[in-house]
Amino acid sequence: MNQPGAGYSGYFDAAAGLPPHPVAAEAMQAAWQDGWADPSRLTGAGRRSAVLLDAARQAAATELGVRPDELSFLPSGVHALQQAVLGSLAGRRRAGTVLLHSAVEHSAVFGAADWHRQHGGEVLVAGVDPAGRVDLDEFVELARRPGVATAVLQAANHEVGTRQPVAEAARQLAGIGVPLVVDAGHELVYGQAPAGVPIFTADARLWGGPAGVGLLVTRQGSRWRPPFPVDEAESGRATGTPNVPAIVAAVASLRATRADRAAEGRRLAGLIEQIRQQVPRTVADTVVLGPDDPAGRLPHLVTFSCLYLDGEALLTEFDRRGFAVSSGSSCTADTLTPSHVLVAMGALTSGNVRISLHPGVGQTDVERFLAVLPEAVAIVRAQAPGSSPGVLPGVLPGDLAAGAVGSLGAGQADAPSGTLPRGQRSAPDGLAGSVLDSRGRRCPLPVLDLARALPGVDIGSELTVLADDPAAASDLAAWCRMRGQQLVDQTVLDSGGTAYRVRRLR
Amino acid sequence: MNQPGAGYSGYFDAAAGLPPHPVAAEAMQAAWQDGWADPSRLTGAGRRSAVLLDAARQAAATELGVRPDELSFLPSGVHALQQAVLGSLAGRRRAGTVLLHSAVEHSAVFGAADWHRQHGGEVLVAGVDPAGRVDLDEFVELARRPGVATAVLQAANHEVGTRQPVAEAARQLAGIGVPLVVDAGHELVYGQAPAGVPIFTADARLWGGPAGVGLLVTRQGSRWRPPFPVDEAESGRATGTPNVPAIVAAVASLRATRADRAAEGRRLAGLIEQIRQQVPRTVADTVVLGPDDPAGRLPHLVTFSCLYLDGEALLTEFDRRGFAVSSGSSCTADTLTPSHVLVAMGALTSGNVRISLHPGVGQTDVERFLAVLPEAVAIVRAQAPGSSPGVLPGVLPGDLAAGAVGSLGAGQADAPSGTLPRGQRSAPDGLAGSVLDSRGRRCPLPVLDLARALPGVDIGSELTVLADDPAAASDLAAWCRMRGQQLVDQTVLDSGGTAYRVRRLR
Repeated sequence: MNQPGAGYSGYFDAAAGLPPHPVAAEAMQAAWQDGWADPSRLTGAGRRSAVLLDAARQAAATELGVRPDELSFLPSGVHALQQAVLGSLAGRRRAGTVLLHSAVEHSAVFGAADWHRQHGGEVLVAGVDPAGRVDLDEFVELARRPGVATAVLQAANHEVGTRQPVAEAARQLAGIGVPLVVDAGHELVYGQAPAGVPIFTADARLWGGPAGVGLLVTRQGSRWRPPFPVDEAESGRATGTPNVPAIVAAVASLRATRADRAAEGRRLAGLIEQIRQQVPRTVADTVVLGPDDPAGRLPHLVTFSCLYLDGEALLTEFDRRGFAVSSGSSCTADTLTPSHVLVAMGALTSGNVRISLHPGVGQTDVERFLAVLPEAVAIVRAQAPGSSPGVLPGVLPGDLAAGAVGSLGAGQADAPSGTLPRGQRSAPDGLAGSVLDSRGRRCPLPVLDLARALPGVDIGSELTVLADDPAAASDLAAWCRMRGQQLVDQTVLDSGGTAYRVRRLR
Repeated sequence: MNQPGAGYSGYFDAAAGLPPHPVAAEAMQAAWQDGWADPSRLTGAGRRSAVLLDAARQAAATELGVRPDELSFLPSGVHALQQAVLGSLAGRRRAGTVLLHSAVEHSAVFGAADWHRQHGGEVLVAGVDPAGRVDLDEFVELARRPGVATAVLQAANHEVGTRQPVAEAARQLAGIGVPLVVDAGHELVYGQAPAGVPIFTADARLWGGPAGVGLLVTRQGSRWRPPFPVDEAESGRATGTPNVPAIVAAVASLRATRADRAAEGRRLAGLIEQIRQQVPRTVADTVVLGPDDPAGRLPHLVTFSCLYLDGEALLTEFDRRGFAVSSGSSCTADTLTPSHVLVAMGALTSGNVRISLHPGVGQTDVERFLAVLPEAVAIVRAQAPGSSPGVLPGVLPGDLAAGAVGSLGAGQADAPSGTLPRGQRSAPDGLAGSVLDSRGRRCPLPVLDLARALPGVDIGSELTVLADDPAAASDLAAWCRMRGQQLVDQTVLDSGGTAYRVRRLR
């Protein structure tokens, strides 16, 4: 097993962390005997540890184009990112207490922003276009607001692969004196280290390093200060004894991965392009997300969403067939909320699938996946609770013909429970007209309810869908766009949930 | 190498972290292939990781006598301890913002306390007796003060081995509604897990686990809340993907170490007792620190201090002879301040040596150490800058006879520079009488200056030593106690440093 990722040909979830790179495993084992001691101790064991740590720091700094004293090792990519953001705010307290970040950052940035807000700070969020790209003009405009102390922008998005204009953002922000913190993570694997950026971070798990290593770069002149208690470790920039064997392994795999990055990036980009082309052709009611232009996205990652699909059931179906993928659907998360990235893009969150490849995945693996995808989707669509008994594997729900509003699914235990009987005039909260109550029903059911009910409404007339699933806002809007129908407006109800007014156009 | 610590027979610095336990190395290697993935992912790799993590958590919880859901894994013992303290304060904000801890806690507690103070909190510190044991009555009395939200007490001290009355403290504090946070670290290796304590922590490096694993136990009913941003890891109690292979290795070595703890504890206690007996007999001007009663201290750790010794030079001398020890002397630390533990005890900090043993150290290793100790001390004492040229290896500086005040060392570049010439009346800041200016001179020189100069003063008369080394306060007082002389008082000088008034009694 000398090929990275060998034995993981069905693992399409590289962006959640790679299996250990062979050189990481070797380096870890070698460093285990000589790197276990605290490198700050004045003992032989401590000195041997310090030699390994210094060498690893020097090698990683060279790879990243920074000075060794600008690079610290933290216990994870999330630690590094949170400390980058909050440490930049701490160092810039005189400038103000406002944090700016894009709407599609890693959840660690949102966690840091929540913490900052709870401790008296303010947070501004810059939106993105439907491809997930931040509006640079808006971003810079927000950064000019009084009191903005730090801005955060990822190099590339971890869910849809969209590259952000970090170099240009850093240049413009430098002009107005606001430091940019960049989450370099996924871009660093096959792309460039951020240049001209005062602070950036990375997570070693993304290139086959072990858990337990995050990289934090604070360039000379940046006003970063430790936001949390520190001790003497890592020149006062980290806490606890450095995990030297893991650091050595992380750096070895970084260099090995990046040595091959141009060729491997091209190879993976080809496989991803194949997926992007083929998925919409073989699976109905599916949208591929992210920029069409290959230069505008990561080479190894693609995301698509499928209507009328329970994301968790789809993951289970793929898993059964030997493929590991990820999903930003609400039904696969503990929180029951859909991915904030997909919501910010206004994308369909239902049946969301993220595929992220790695050196252990070959052409035949992608072809195997593409071959099983249509059937897997059909099976899961057929299993959706409340789906029409007439929908069978192979029959695409795009052809669903549903009954009229008010009688739809009546008598079925898992059908919309509050559908108003025909003729009833007093809708909840004074809503008039046809009303479909999908409250209490989770993704993908509200969209499925709408898809079945709308054909029962006259063309030009309206149907109001009541829903309290957090995914409904994104998904009903996305459905209307995909189907050429009109989402007229939406109103939060006093009685709970939101009313979505949909006009049937065709 | 199946014996833990084999190959490290001269490594007497176990309290700074042990070489990897053989079962840790095995477990790490086994878990490396199956535990690399994020255990929260809904993929096959994620599930295999989760199975390993669950099993490790269950095993560790059983070993510690707690429930699995009360135990979290953090990236280091320092992380765990800081989060234990600040998380208890966060969870008890309604009760107040006062933190109480003993004066001899781990530096992580002082780091957390500084942070708490900078963020608007208050901190109370309870003193210790000369053996390093907290005064329980004072501790509980301070805990009764209004606004005390959390109290912190270590199970046993990491520098001198003194056991603290944690069980009794927890009982009394429970009675007044103040939760106790216990740093269980060193006690956990050969002793008991804390019982009846709401929150406690440990560091896997102390029992031969890998770096990167700290344990945090928050018992049911404790009001702990995450003090820093968290994500979903470890049920919201930690940040970043859990380092599963390291956790598995940490737990395997915890169980293996504790399986043998009674016999191993007895064996090491015998070796430590031998060191405690022999050091004062073979090395003049030396004090052994910590409680005399073996039940009152850790079995595997002993600390002593030697007059007229540069701690760093002594460590280097031991290192040259194949022994790794630790020191709380100021000259071995980056900060130039002596160990806060030794200062709180009022102990001599000069020439401080901490020895902490482990399973790989045998009787013959301790005998080798005891055989080289007197010569090593004599060599380093002879090398001290400004020491009398007449002092040679084997000649103990306790016999030093120095010249008269005012002429002592005159003309020597590294002798006290500001010694007042005889007859000069106007001493700095209006000090009268014989004055020895040791300002600008570092440990162990101020004590050496006093030892040389005092014989030049008449019995019953006084000599004032000016010193600005932070170690001087502890060390001049300790010297006077050891020599039967009287430290009359001490005064901070406007011109910098402190004036110590010493009366010659004999």
